[in-house]
Amino acid sequence: MWSRKHSDWDSRIIFEMVQIDGVYEPVREALKLVDHTIEKVAEVEAGFISRLLEHVLKGGGKRIRPAITLLAGKFHNYNLDLLVPMAAAVEVLHTATLVHDDIIDRSRTRRGKVTVSAEWGDARAILLGDYLLAKAADLCAATENCRVIRLCSQTLMTISRGELEQSAFTFNLSGAKDQYYRWITAKTAALFGMAAESGGILSGASEAEIAALREYGCNLGMAFQIVDDVLDFAGDEAEMGKPTGEDLRQGVVTLPAILYLESNYGDRPAKDIAGIVAKKNERKLRLLTRKVRESPFIKECLEIAANYSELARKSLSVMSDGIAKQSLLKLVEWALERKK
Amino acid sequence: MWSRKHSDWDSRIIFEMVQIDGVYEPVREALKLVDHTIEKVAEVEAGFISRLLEHVLKGGGKRIRPAITLLAGKFHNYNLDLLVPMAAAVEVLHTATLVHDDIIDRSRTRRGKVTVSAEWGDARAILLGDYLLAKAADLCAATENCRVIRLCSQTLMTISRGELEQSAFTFNLSGAKDQYYRWITAKTAALFGMAAESGGILSGASEAEIAALREYGCNLGMAFQIVDDVLDFAGDEAEMGKPTGEDLRQGVVTLPAILYLESNYGDRPAKDIAGIVAKKNERKLRLLTRKVRESPFIKECLEIAANYSELARKSLSVMSDGIAKQSLLKLVEWALERKK
Repeated sequence: MWSRKHSDWDSRIIFEMVQIDGVYEPVREALKLVDHTIEKVAEVEAGFISRLLEHVLKGGGKRIRPAITLLAGKFHNYNLDLLVPMAAAVEVLHTATLVHDDIIDRSRTRRGKVTVSAEWGDARAILLGDYLLAKAADLCAATENCRVIRLCSQTLMTISRGELEQSAFTFNLSGAKDQYYRWITAKTAALFGMAAESGGILSGASEAEIAALREYGCNLGMAFQIVDDVLDFAGDEAEMGKPTGEDLRQGVVTLPAILYLESNYGDRPAKDIAGIVAKKNERKLRLLTRKVRESPFIKECLEIAANYSELARKSLSVMSDGIAKQSLLKLVEWALERKK
Repeated sequence: MWSRKHSDWDSRIIFEMVQIDGVYEPVREALKLVDHTIEKVAEVEAGFISRLLEHVLKGGGKRIRPAITLLAGKFHNYNLDLLVPMAAAVEVLHTATLVHDDIIDRSRTRRGKVTVSAEWGDARAILLGDYLLAKAADLCAATENCRVIRLCSQTLMTISRGELEQSAFTFNLSGAKDQYYRWITAKTAALFGMAAESGGILSGASEAEIAALREYGCNLGMAFQIVDDVLDFAGDEAEMGKPTGEDLRQGVVTLPAILYLESNYGDRPAKDIAGIVAKKNERKLRLLTRKVRESPFIKECLEIAANYSELARKSLSVMSDGIAKQSLLKLVEWALERKK
């Protein structure tokens, strides 16, 4: 049913797969089908819209979320007629939110390419994001499984609600940590959770297993996001291909900075946080970034991420042993150890 | 199952209903349930997002699209457990596209209220629109009918695709009419078609009837949009509550202007159309608006709209006679004769 046409996208994906150390091995073939499905999203359209779709869907990303869906679907009935469109839906939904985020954050590059909003303007980026949201819903609906269809719509509600709440949050230190956890739960953990849960549902897992897979995804998502936020301070700029301190520069105060500020509030750059962020004072932003990077709070954040990883690992205890479980466990390790 | 709580929204709806002359009579009670469902979209949320939802969902609009769904669902099994969430989904989807359109068009008011983008900024409007799209999908999914769920996702794909194509269209007179029809087919007829078709599907109509209802909706949508575009030139400013010529002012050249330009291309304002629109030369825009209004092309547009209305009417011939059909026929008349 799913054609296995070889394409130039594969090489990029295989490269990424080697990067995450064989984690994708059990679902390698299926992941190619997911890529082919995503590739077709652009191919079935013509003209301008096809060009935009190709731009955002081609060769980008690590495909972590669709891999989770496929791996989560490998414990029981590994039905690719259902799992492949679902995994593609997860990735397309993720891409849609990125296209809209890039408008909001005024980002000029994403995954080494110019963003849609920077190249073709905000109006087109809004419409392209809407098209992708609809396409994600449509791919999901192709499973004809009402439970995953609702999971998909409710996940997008959670993501948008989380971003709206974050946009309404006026930075204050006493509320910052709570707000940070609420925000990443909505923006990252919800989609990771959906990726894992949908794989369980579509492969006929038991309710206990579906709940466990969801727990796994959510906790992995929390760990993944915290590491992401740590890398923004402490990552290697050359390896990541982008400068550090980008979050602060965009006015986003994440966990490493929050922990630093909580402990050093008498410190001048800490006290000035709102002012520094609002005024985009580049010299002070760099100083603050360096102070956070050199603080013990980087390690503390990684410990917090490790705790979420541990929860992710534990939630898999109800799942049967085998290659799928091994890969999901390796993914947890990778999420913690990755350098970009 | 659906509570019948009386609310202050009802009075507004009843007023609108009287306006369109008893068309809604057969579905009046159900329409209140739809309104209650839409009202709940804001109520189940809290804080900032609830405020935004209330702002865009409360008391606005003529509720034509949900009324079509309910009326189309009245020929067979009038099951409100399915038809009410579907009708609400249609209206919420419509509202979502308006919220995003208002960012793109830089509109400052909508339905007599300030737009979300004007009041709370583009970022919040993007996120609110996304939330509403997800909510529409979720309401639709509540029917647990995969066919209407796919209809919903594909309709949003059609709408976004149409707007993207329109955004890529560089005005040229030889292609303008074709592009106009493609555009309104995607942006208006598709959603009217979905409103009618989904009512047929969910009430267990035959395939022939479902196709007829879809045809009805699409043709009614075409007529509705053409009249909308005529009113923008020839409407009564006081009655409509907004100035005429707004489309041209926003750089949108609709059917009345296209027909005028085709016949008067030697005329100076006509020749300058691209320049006038691009430079937003207010004096020349008013002159052009007046020339179009006083031209015979207003009448010609209304005749074209009447042709679509006739097609809508004819497509109902396969439907059984009764109050639902009478209302759908009256709606066609209203669409042609309305003054705002």
